[in-house]
Amino acid sequence: MTQVHVIGTGLLGTSLGLALRRVGDDVTLEDISPTHAALARDLGAGRLAESAVDGDGDAGFEPDLVVVATPPDVTAAVVARALTRWPTAFVTDLASVKGAVVNGLRATGTDLTRYCGSHPMAGRERSGAVSGRYDLFDGRAWVLTPTEETDPAATVLVTAVARSVGAAVSTLAPERHDAAVAAVSHVPQLAASLVAARLEPLDDAAVALAGQGLRDVTRIAASDPGLWTQILAGNAPAVRDVLTALVADLERVVDALDDLSTSTDAPGARGALAHAIAAGNAGHARIPGKHGAAPTTYTTVRVLIPDEPGQLGRLFAHIGEIGANVEEFHLDHGLGQAFGVAEIDVVPGAAAGLGEGLTERGWHLHG
Amino acid sequence: MTQVHVIGTGLLGTSLGLALRRVGDDVTLEDISPTHAALARDLGAGRLAESAVDGDGDAGFEPDLVVVATPPDVTAAVVARALTRWPTAFVTDLASVKGAVVNGLRATGTDLTRYCGSHPMAGRERSGAVSGRYDLFDGRAWVLTPTEETDPAATVLVTAVARSVGAAVSTLAPERHDAAVAAVSHVPQLAASLVAARLEPLDDAAVALAGQGLRDVTRIAASDPGLWTQILAGNAPAVRDVLTALVADLERVVDALDDLSTSTDAPGARGALAHAIAAGNAGHARIPGKHGAAPTTYTTVRVLIPDEPGQLGRLFAHIGEIGANVEEFHLDHGLGQAFGVAEIDVVPGAAAGLGEGLTERGWHLHG
Repeated sequence: MTQVHVIGTGLLGTSLGLALRRVGDDVTLEDISPTHAALARDLGAGRLAESAVDGDGDAGFEPDLVVVATPPDVTAAVVARALTRWPTAFVTDLASVKGAVVNGLRATGTDLTRYCGSHPMAGRERSGAVSGRYDLFDGRAWVLTPTEETDPAATVLVTAVARSVGAAVSTLAPERHDAAVAAVSHVPQLAASLVAARLEPLDDAAVALAGQGLRDVTRIAASDPGLWTQILAGNAPAVRDVLTALVADLERVVDALDDLSTSTDAPGARGALAHAIAAGNAGHARIPGKHGAAPTTYTTVRVLIPDEPGQLGRLFAHIGEIGANVEEFHLDHGLGQAFGVAEIDVVPGAAAGLGEGLTERGWHLHG
Repeated sequence: MTQVHVIGTGLLGTSLGLALRRVGDDVTLEDISPTHAALARDLGAGRLAESAVDGDGDAGFEPDLVVVATPPDVTAAVVARALTRWPTAFVTDLASVKGAVVNGLRATGTDLTRYCGSHPMAGRERSGAVSGRYDLFDGRAWVLTPTEETDPAATVLVTAVARSVGAAVSTLAPERHDAAVAAVSHVPQLAASLVAARLEPLDDAAVALAGQGLRDVTRIAASDPGLWTQILAGNAPAVRDVLTALVADLERVVDALDDLSTSTDAPGARGALAHAIAAGNAGHARIPGKHGAAPTTYTTVRVLIPDEPGQLGRLFAHIGEIGANVEEFHLDHGLGQAFGVAEIDVVPGAAAGLGEGLTERGWHLHG
């Protein structure tokens, strides 16, 4: 049994408490708001530690691990204070940007031996203790960001805790973590938001031409501006670097389109366009597929689905009869039509049998 | 019965022939390649018209509608010639960019009375007659782009033909069509490609942090560079205009991130970031939902799915028992884990009952 002390009982802190209690750990809770801490306790995330509520000096207990789950802008200060309050405990934090925390700690001369930062990739659209889920970390990546000073025992303990709640642990240096999330999360968010923003001036007849591609590209454009302002501001240098490179790439495409707008010949312009799309192919191929493995190429079987209750159940019952294992499944709706198109991804060897089996059972394959 | 003559027996021309023959129309076929035309005939897309194979003068028959389904760069010339060859027939084309065709026709002094351009939003990843499907246009948008000179009878006939193969018809002026597809299709493609291109230099540990948001944003980055070079070059001025505005928006964000990188105060910078994300919210809300209606807000029920054959079938059988109608369904895989998370979108009133019903049947709801 590990004794874990959680500071900050929002979504992440409460979810971690719920998850750790299920695996038998002893969890104490603390929040700058006594009401929030008591709510998390009432939800089953842990107990309120003696004298921990006011965060005073010697807290009267000695946790193995302190988890700082506060907003990013106070994380460094709370980590520094935790290292002082519990002189033998290891300390981690859950902030989504890591370099700023380490820099904040270094700026105050904090000894980083017992600190191993971390970042569980497990956000939700909602926040607060009441949104906490014991399975929030199940199957999610949890990145550890030890520094050179970090005691390997700290990394081992944080790894064990993260794994005990179902997360997949990996390790990156703080600055490499921040550069990675800039490219795989923060810049994609900005691109999705600003592509969606370009739809605002269109009239209804124009946006009616929206297809599945646009829907996919802009799905995350519905994200919360307040939350994302904090995230982007916290990782400003790394996001700026990736975004600057993206803008330069886009400007090369603008130049090519400009040439093509004024000249039908436009030497080099078509090459620049093809290069942009081909570079996207190469980058897309880097994204890991299912199970964290290298990208797998699946074959897609498309089926017309009448928009009536029970049709998907019937479809999956038939897929079960046929014995195909569905790797990915996506439902796409036709514009103004009372049915959709189901895209069923299977390993290439299974596609022909699935298509035949579905056709035999009366389904119409599509495209 | 309508007599339709199709020029160009690639994916679109062949699919249209297959679809029109199923609704009882008489379809004649023509292609610059006699082999391609004969293949489309053998697949059941129509008959080869007398003397139509060599495209000579009076073709010896008088179609009601000529459909030009050639590559975009020769479309205007083939439309002009069709208007001459059949002096009473209406003519449409299927090119994905419309202004360039009209400009090409105007440049040669062609009378546009019998011409009504159109664009079925029904591409595929594959091309050629052999990929043709009678249901390619089912449930897809098909935009008509008449000019001021177009005889209303031409628009009526093209509308009837498009509807007879299951398409949802709308009308836009050619230049407005091109501006619309620039914003809803061509710029999103470029953004997805170049966001994906930024992943190329990352190492494996960094791309391992990719989540579902990145996967959605970059899904279409796997598109074909050759095809997209043609599409983008054909709509260069409209794509350039939207892309220039996008670049300006991104540059404002770069400036804000720059300020935040050099100053913790940075007045106005957080406001600029929040504005970018909020503008994305507003644009995203413009995208029509299912059935071409205004956006519908669904409630998402998330369920953990063990990665074993038959689990999705079991899930949908249970959803059927519960009686919920699935509006959207998406399967998301956890990193390095042997299960996925199914996101089931239902109308808000049905979510609680679905969640309870699934829990009773042993499913674990997630996040």
